[in-house]
Amino acid sequence: MNFGINADTICALSTATGMGAIAVVRVSGPQSITIVNQIFSKDIAKAESHTAHFGLLKDESQIIDEVLINVFHLNQSFTGEETVEIACHGSVFIQQAVLQLLLKHGCRLAEAGEFTMRAYMNGRFDLAQAEAIADLIASRSAAAHRMALTQMRGGVSKQLAELRQQLIDFAALIELELDFGEEDVEFADRTRLKLLIAEIMQVIDKLRKSFHLGNAIKNGIPVAIVGAPNVGKSTLLNALLNEDKAIVSEVPGTTRDFIEDEIIIKGVSYRFVDTAGLRETTDIVENLGIERSFKKAGEASVVLYLLDERNHKVKETIEELNAFKNNYIQSNQVFIVVVNKLELIDNEFDFLSDFQPIFISAKAQINLDQLIDSITVVSEQFTEQQNEVLISNARHFDALNRAYDNLVRVTEGMNTQLPTDLIAMDIRQVINHIGSITGAVDVEEVLGSIFSKFCIGK
Amino acid sequence: MNFGINADTICALSTATGMGAIAVVRVSGPQSITIVNQIFSKDIAKAESHTAHFGLLKDESQIIDEVLINVFHLNQSFTGEETVEIACHGSVFIQQAVLQLLLKHGCRLAEAGEFTMRAYMNGRFDLAQAEAIADLIASRSAAAHRMALTQMRGGVSKQLAELRQQLIDFAALIELELDFGEEDVEFADRTRLKLLIAEIMQVIDKLRKSFHLGNAIKNGIPVAIVGAPNVGKSTLLNALLNEDKAIVSEVPGTTRDFIEDEIIIKGVSYRFVDTAGLRETTDIVENLGIERSFKKAGEASVVLYLLDERNHKVKETIEELNAFKNNYIQSNQVFIVVVNKLELIDNEFDFLSDFQPIFISAKAQINLDQLIDSITVVSEQFTEQQNEVLISNARHFDALNRAYDNLVRVTEGMNTQLPTDLIAMDIRQVINHIGSITGAVDVEEVLGSIFSKFCIGK
Repeated sequence: MNFGINADTICALSTATGMGAIAVVRVSGPQSITIVNQIFSKDIAKAESHTAHFGLLKDESQIIDEVLINVFHLNQSFTGEETVEIACHGSVFIQQAVLQLLLKHGCRLAEAGEFTMRAYMNGRFDLAQAEAIADLIASRSAAAHRMALTQMRGGVSKQLAELRQQLIDFAALIELELDFGEEDVEFADRTRLKLLIAEIMQVIDKLRKSFHLGNAIKNGIPVAIVGAPNVGKSTLLNALLNEDKAIVSEVPGTTRDFIEDEIIIKGVSYRFVDTAGLRETTDIVENLGIERSFKKAGEASVVLYLLDERNHKVKETIEELNAFKNNYIQSNQVFIVVVNKLELIDNEFDFLSDFQPIFISAKAQINLDQLIDSITVVSEQFTEQQNEVLISNARHFDALNRAYDNLVRVTEGMNTQLPTDLIAMDIRQVINHIGSITGAVDVEEVLGSIFSKFCIGK
Repeated sequence: MNFGINADTICALSTATGMGAIAVVRVSGPQSITIVNQIFSKDIAKAESHTAHFGLLKDESQIIDEVLINVFHLNQSFTGEETVEIACHGSVFIQQAVLQLLLKHGCRLAEAGEFTMRAYMNGRFDLAQAEAIADLIASRSAAAHRMALTQMRGGVSKQLAELRQQLIDFAALIELELDFGEEDVEFADRTRLKLLIAEIMQVIDKLRKSFHLGNAIKNGIPVAIVGAPNVGKSTLLNALLNEDKAIVSEVPGTTRDFIEDEIIIKGVSYRFVDTAGLRETTDIVENLGIERSFKKAGEASVVLYLLDERNHKVKETIEELNAFKNNYIQSNQVFIVVVNKLELIDNEFDFLSDFQPIFISAKAQINLDQLIDSITVVSEQFTEQQNEVLISNARHFDALNRAYDNLVRVTEGMNTQLPTDLIAMDIRQVINHIGSITGAVDVEEVLGSIFSKFCIGK
């Protein structure tokens, strides 16, 4: 990928692939208007920015399509470059013909994420915001959408930039001290520095702790179903997935991308973990996997422990539940005891009342609503925190952890009277780690890996 | 569908469904700007037509997305109505959120084709042009694209409208004669009328004959592969299909919709007919189907007759080929004799030279290029006729046939001195049939023409 000055003009299909009423091809770069002018029936050389023009797209004398063209001037477009957007008829043939025509006249096909990368390179937004655009496009639930939008609009960036700037100011003073060598001057107020470090550590700690939640929102809250063979785990999973497909209110004309084993409830995505195992047969071998699947369950945010009519033996069941809970469930997890095969049981399950079990029939789809309500309790924390800045990007999480580790070392260094130059080095590291999130430091190696994950046309 | 005045404002996703970098939601109707103004961060009430505006789409205080909005004023949009196009980020979630927001503020979801229907109702184009838009969007080959574009740009309409207008003028004169009842006046020059009728018949006949070609371009030129069991029909089909997938130059970032059993060569689509049968096993039962498949082959534009090393017996083979050709092949079909299993044969096939056979190996993919060149000979007529107006719509074909039949009756009627009112009735039928193509069916038009030309104080 080219990180230098963008002398070339790129083009790509920006709308979804496949047939639609219209499709939009985006052209960005210094020659955008010049190139489109060669193939468009109207002269847009002097067109004002943000104006639309209807006309013909022509390959010499041959008409390719009737199109609507949007013109954006330098510094007034998404990329910050001169940009032309061509809305053509949405046949795949025409999409290709338009792209081929542009290539013929000197455009280059954009690489994945290249429009966004150019926008970043041109200072339209920082790296964290650019990454949020990819998340925004991939978002499938209201919560993930809201989180990506907050990040795209600079939520994370602003918070970090302020702290980082204060740290830079201190670093400058400390490095000035170093210039004075042996003179033992102290420009940087150590007490204020300690306070600042403590404050930054607090913020960073809060942010990195938000990753658990942010990641769950982005990728779906992990839900595990555990239970003995034949208790109905796979039937329950399918019933829940079907329930979702039934309740989702879909607007005709759009298709919802159903992700296997994901349900979206009240705008939050829940992802059933290890469903491959769940769906496997219930033969004897499964028992061998129980320990493993229990462990896996321990990593889920919501754990459904499924019982059935065979669990009416009071003592064993309570022991079993307590053992599982003590061994695998943390306080921040939602643990729900579900008694399946409602039709086969009587009141003999009263002994479970401490666990507040939910009685369902996965097969007959009874009480699934109640179960879903219980599962979604977990999402209430999201709604509470919806205006908080959440970290959802593993790269950011990693940078925050590194920054935090360096801050610990800075604190220790100051407490143990470590030489100023070593402390200064750690502070630089913190500045770099925080800066790498928003791209405020040179991180060319990071850029390629970030933008290559985008779809082409963005 | 509502054919009355469009008081309501409609919205729909106009780009392809699924995830893309951006998606475009179109809003059309009298309230478009008012509705979007309620949810957009900038005031577009006084925005000029054909201007683009970047801002936030909001559901009360909640931001839905950063969007780019295009404003089109009444009589300056595709539909002819006030229109707003919203380019949002292309996640399926956002597409749905934007549509739901519009519905909440008073839009109605557009029905299929409703934007185009409104454009037609508002006189932006005629019915044939509207139909061509659907063909354009569905076009998969250069030839189909060119044909649809010609029709969309009024190719068919213009030709028909001129002739129809002349007919309307005559009809007006003839109906004026009827008003004079028994007075035996003759306003309409019968000689000129006969000439006109002859001319119209010629044009309509040419147009309706073009349907065979137009339909082949639109739906693919039918190609049949016939031959004895085990001769390699299915291997050849697969080899040709693979060849196509290999040679198609695809622009990254767009996907070509591969249609099963279709190959596109030099911009023309070829569709292999009855491939289900071709792909079936070559067991004894197949012999029973030979007669049927021969008949089917007779309907294809290109027939490949496949032989192999077993056909070296001179007399039988030539008899077999001649029998097939005489029974099933018309002069307008391309008939190609193909000798498969090249590796198994020697010169003993010289006796076939009259048939100019092509020697191939479907299995080893030898000489397929040469075969493809021969197949595409059939498409040369398309390139020759590329500037001709072609009929590709079955509805138009039907209307032209009906019009032609009525014209035959008009001619006969005039020759046999049929009463003027009966001839007038047939002429009106012709006018109606031609008019139904462009959607100009309206008897009032005939009346209007009468009064405008003969308003002599009567």
